Amino acid sequence: MPAPTTPTPAVVDLLGLVALGELLAFDRMAADARLAPDLRRRAALSEMAAAEIGNYRRLADRLAALDVPPDDAMAPYVGPLQAYHDSTEPKDWAEAVTKAYVGDAITDDFLREIAGTLDGPDRQLVLDVLHESRYADFAAAEIRVAIEADPRVANRLSMWARRLVGEALSQAGRVAAADRGPLTALIAQGEQVDVQGLFRRLTAAHTARMAAVGLNN
Amino acid sequence: MPAPTTPTPAVVDLLGLVALGELLAFDRMAADARLAPDLRRRAALSEMAAAEIGNYRRLADRLAALDVPPDDAMAPYVGPLQAYHDSTEPKDWAEAVTKAYVGDAITDDFLREIAGTLDGPDRQLVLDVLHESRYADFAAAEIRVAIEADPRVANRLSMWARRLVGEALSQAGRVAAADRGPLTALIAQGEQVDVQGLFRRLTAAHTARMAAVGLNN
Repeated sequence: MPAPTTPTPAVVDLLGLVALGELLAFDRMAADARLAPDLRRRAALSEMAAAEIGNYRRLADRLAALDVPPDDAMAPYVGPLQAYHDSTEPKDWAEAVTKAYVGDAITDDFLREIAGTLDGPDRQLVLDVLHESRYADFAAAEIRVAIEADPRVANRLSMWARRLVGEALSQAGRVAAADRGPLTALIAQGEQVDVQGLFRRLTAAHTARMAAVGLNN
Repeated sequence: MPAPTTPTPAVVDLLGLVALGELLAFDRMAADARLAPDLRRRAALSEMAAAEIGNYRRLADRLAALDVPPDDAMAPYVGPLQAYHDSTEPKDWAEAVTKAYVGDAITDDFLREIAGTLDGPDRQLVLDVLHESRYADFAAAEIRVAIEADPRVANRLSMWARRLVGEALSQAGRVAAADRGPLTALIAQGEQVDVQGLFRRLTAAHTARMAAVGLNN
């Protein structure tokens, strides 16, 4: 199979989407860290937030190298991504770590799938901005602690996780609509990514992750 | 002159104070980033915030290596540091960057002075967590842009900077009172640090920085 060639507009759209995702994830995680029950946990979620901004910088630098102002590349996605976060504001620490756990992993799964459609440096960049597994481990441990302290929490967090996924899917639809064409085309391009299959794989991985921390899908 | 020997309790207090300062600076700068007029500037202040949490991690690791839970070392200072930030919430972007500009620099000046009283690895650690100058350059440039756009802003920001210093001094007094003894002793120890001289040098450097961005003291 020949190396796929990627039209630059699609790469720009994708980098813009991911960059904005990192910037807003930073913002919300930094705010959610205030929900932490102690300074140690607050620092841990703050560090997860800080990692996002490091990734943002790499993506913004790449956009600049492609002669695209990062703000321009991100602009089409501000509405849907902001709406996702506005509609999923955690109201306690358990919800905050569940949001980080669910959101980071689905984002990573999506990026791993999409990376295959990109060429050399951009593929590597997208793989490089995946979240470090120690952050997911921390979030998973916190969810388990919360459930252990009060088993009824499992039900509430399961519902919360379903809401997170529902809101994410709803905003993903808006992202596709906001997209100027190339990004959706990139995701849907023939045998590179099969959208039905992508959706099935993301869902299966999410279900397995929920089970791993004692939540049900 | 023989190398100064530092009592461990003072080092613990100092590392705890600085670590908490980083953690809260992260929190507030991350929130202040929302005041940015565009995504580029928002990302720049977010990156400044993220740098604080990287430093927090180094300080917390050092405390852990000294067998002190970071939360314990930070606890005495939560009241005054939180009060400083609560009483100096910026209400627009110009105030946010001025707060970062003024606060980071005074913190660094203080740490440079205090580093001389510490031994080897802790001295190096404290010097390592000083802010990168590109952050101050960014903040200074933003202040100049704001004044250029509306010269009347200079007066408002000058007053704001005086309030920042006033609140910081007032909370520094509370820090000294909250301190269990060794930190204040460390700062005041004989010829190592002359408190009057320290105060004079910090003030002179602050005045010069104000003038450099078109503000008056």
